[in-house]
Amino acid sequence: MSRRIDLPADRMPKSWYNILADLPTPLAPPLHPGTMQPVGPEDLAPLFPMALIEQEMSTQREIPIPEEIREKLAIWRPTPLIRATGLERALGTPARIYYKNESVSPAGSHKPNTAVAQAYYNAKAGIKRLTTETGAGQWGSALSFAGALFGLDVEVYMVRASYDQKPYRRVMMETWGGRCIPSPSPFTEVGRRILEATPDTPGSLGMAISEAVEKAVQDSETAYALGSVLNHVLLHQTVMGLEAGEQLEMVGAYPDVVIGCVGGGSNFGGIALPFVRDRIGGKRVRIVAVEPSSCPTLTRGPYAYDFGDTGKMTPLMAMHTLGHDFVPPPIHAGGLRYHGVAPIISNLLKEQLIEAIAVDQVEAFTAGVQFARTEGIIPAPETTHALAATVREALAAKEAGEARTILVSFSGHGLVDMASYEAFLHNKLVPYEMPESEIVRALKALDGLPKAP
Amino acid sequence: MSRRIDLPADRMPKSWYNILADLPTPLAPPLHPGTMQPVGPEDLAPLFPMALIEQEMSTQREIPIPEEIREKLAIWRPTPLIRATGLERALGTPARIYYKNESVSPAGSHKPNTAVAQAYYNAKAGIKRLTTETGAGQWGSALSFAGALFGLDVEVYMVRASYDQKPYRRVMMETWGGRCIPSPSPFTEVGRRILEATPDTPGSLGMAISEAVEKAVQDSETAYALGSVLNHVLLHQTVMGLEAGEQLEMVGAYPDVVIGCVGGGSNFGGIALPFVRDRIGGKRVRIVAVEPSSCPTLTRGPYAYDFGDTGKMTPLMAMHTLGHDFVPPPIHAGGLRYHGVAPIISNLLKEQLIEAIAVDQVEAFTAGVQFARTEGIIPAPETTHALAATVREALAAKEAGEARTILVSFSGHGLVDMASYEAFLHNKLVPYEMPESEIVRALKALDGLPKAP
Repeated sequence: MSRRIDLPADRMPKSWYNILADLPTPLAPPLHPGTMQPVGPEDLAPLFPMALIEQEMSTQREIPIPEEIREKLAIWRPTPLIRATGLERALGTPARIYYKNESVSPAGSHKPNTAVAQAYYNAKAGIKRLTTETGAGQWGSALSFAGALFGLDVEVYMVRASYDQKPYRRVMMETWGGRCIPSPSPFTEVGRRILEATPDTPGSLGMAISEAVEKAVQDSETAYALGSVLNHVLLHQTVMGLEAGEQLEMVGAYPDVVIGCVGGGSNFGGIALPFVRDRIGGKRVRIVAVEPSSCPTLTRGPYAYDFGDTGKMTPLMAMHTLGHDFVPPPIHAGGLRYHGVAPIISNLLKEQLIEAIAVDQVEAFTAGVQFARTEGIIPAPETTHALAATVREALAAKEAGEARTILVSFSGHGLVDMASYEAFLHNKLVPYEMPESEIVRALKALDGLPKAP
Repeated sequence: MSRRIDLPADRMPKSWYNILADLPTPLAPPLHPGTMQPVGPEDLAPLFPMALIEQEMSTQREIPIPEEIREKLAIWRPTPLIRATGLERALGTPARIYYKNESVSPAGSHKPNTAVAQAYYNAKAGIKRLTTETGAGQWGSALSFAGALFGLDVEVYMVRASYDQKPYRRVMMETWGGRCIPSPSPFTEVGRRILEATPDTPGSLGMAISEAVEKAVQDSETAYALGSVLNHVLLHQTVMGLEAGEQLEMVGAYPDVVIGCVGGGSNFGGIALPFVRDRIGGKRVRIVAVEPSSCPTLTRGPYAYDFGDTGKMTPLMAMHTLGHDFVPPPIHAGGLRYHGVAPIISNLLKEQLIEAIAVDQVEAFTAGVQFARTEGIIPAPETTHALAATVREALAAKEAGEARTILVSFSGHGLVDMASYEAFLHNKLVPYEMPESEIVRALKALDGLPKAP
């Protein structure tokens, strides 16, 4: 039997799975920071097209994927599910490890799954331009790619430090026709204000969000796009878990453990939510979210109402958070450096439907290099965190002498992140544990905000 | 109907197709440069394991692919065949354009197809270490990847100029466990000699080949691996064309035109040879090889006996060549900068079974960016040449009002070559036509060598 399980092209999912239909306790509503009242569709209308706002709030279990989106997803979907026989042999484990390979997308990660959907709905609503922020550059690349496919201008505010360090990310965006602007920039009110006060600032995701939002609200033909955290983003990503479930069924398998890395939660949600539904339905399956120990949102942050950005421009969301002022150290997995996490993921952890663990980047890259040398694909720094947890689970299965089935999301390749491998291979990375005092200090940012239910 | 045509995993080819069984005129034999006699297996034995030497010389039509190789190829094969509906719409052409997407391999190109096979046969023959050269780095990466899968040490001599300009290529090789050495190096006799004479030399592929060969012949546990030109390399690459043929059949299509870019000839041979077989059998199909106008081997070089390397260490091969001293300008498609081309491809051109055209890099990158913005995948600089020819053919079909079917090999993605897009997008590339005088001068290197039949 082949180690590779391909879902036939005509079996690409025709609907996304919306877990809001099945949550044992409903999500706490996002609050307007001015009124502290639940946010309504009209509050979001200056930023997003109505179709996405409806998806954000919908409790309909299956939401059909428009044919125009499926046609674009077909460039790389369904993605392969592959049995990691090389890694299994290297670990000497009886576990069966399957990885869902999202690295085959044009941007090299899972991000285009939602970028394509968001670009489609915006174009359909008559929007001409999307603004967004990007840290490491994965999301800005994915949105530039999707914008090109639907004829949208894309303006990406990229944290200045990353912009300077990673010029090729900018060129990727430009090749797709996107415009990449180092943030803070002189093109927005908030950017000018910051530059005046601190001309040499390296920028931050919080500043970049503020700039992108400011540009979007100013112009009725411009909308804003977010690459993670929100319900509709996780919804779009469920194609991963839905496909993986079907692929495992093709070989008569079902996972004992499902593993994904967590930053804002879109990759983890995408692979996990269809299996969380099974677990809610009584099925026995463990679901493990893996975060970096340097940004331990799920494992050490409280469940609380907090802002999504440093600039306090977003609604308050009930989520695990380290406080909107938290500045994670500059680890290489830039996609996991976020102070909060998706409200859906936070709700599931509270309900004990999922588990969370933290791994440090040395353990992560060790697993990443082992994977590259046994399975052949070089994982993105973010992905290495999920692989480290996979190695732990496979060794636990060996210890227990059990042929457990492990499903892991291989969220992206690392071919544009080789600087991080260089640091690791030359012993320039050290394990990092966030000191308790720093977390306590960061959490002060939550003082005065409403308590989460 | 889906625009994406996936071959089921269990239909990955079980044999390679060997065109030596079907050539109307046999290949002119390679000659030993000392004796000017045809080279025999024993002459190649210090460099290659016997299984590969047998494949190099075999005239057996179908050569079975060992299961151990198929298991590794299954990490990314069969690769998708995709209808480029976005590009078709942008060109307003009635042509149906299908691209075979080889960019989904772990190294991002078609090179691993032969790297895996070569690593397997070497490991099976008890070889412990492979040496090779690399220019832009694609081949060195692919061999490092394959070496990791079969437990071989890989030593890559990388042209110093590229080594300095592309540090991340080196890190890719190191991540897979390979060793990447700037050439010329102090670790070989020939390297020391060159460094003594010209300490500041930027290096060349010719020098790097000499170093890799020297290291391979010195040690019985070390062998040499080549990423293109040779018969067995083209053989391994035929999985591309074989799969594409089956995929087209799945939608009831057959190509009017097959297109691939040509450097040494492995990518073009891989997509084209199964269709050349059909053409020999009487089928109506045009087959177009696309080379850069800055290195016009097929379109302006004579068919002659010549060395494969600048250092004159290889056998003499009958091929289209610009002379072994020819130094192509430093265009961005590093994989196409080779003075010669595979003897098989040269034979086919002589027999008028294929056509050859040259395109300059501005036309190539223009097509590449158009492809990225309509189909979403950023092509490798090499691949953009095939895409430029595809655009020409699609516009010719529009002109003729004919719904021609075009098959093009999408040989790799450009995510690790963004510097070339940066130059193009900022108007730093100019069309380049090699002056006739320079070609005449380079061809003097052929003086005194035997005439090709």
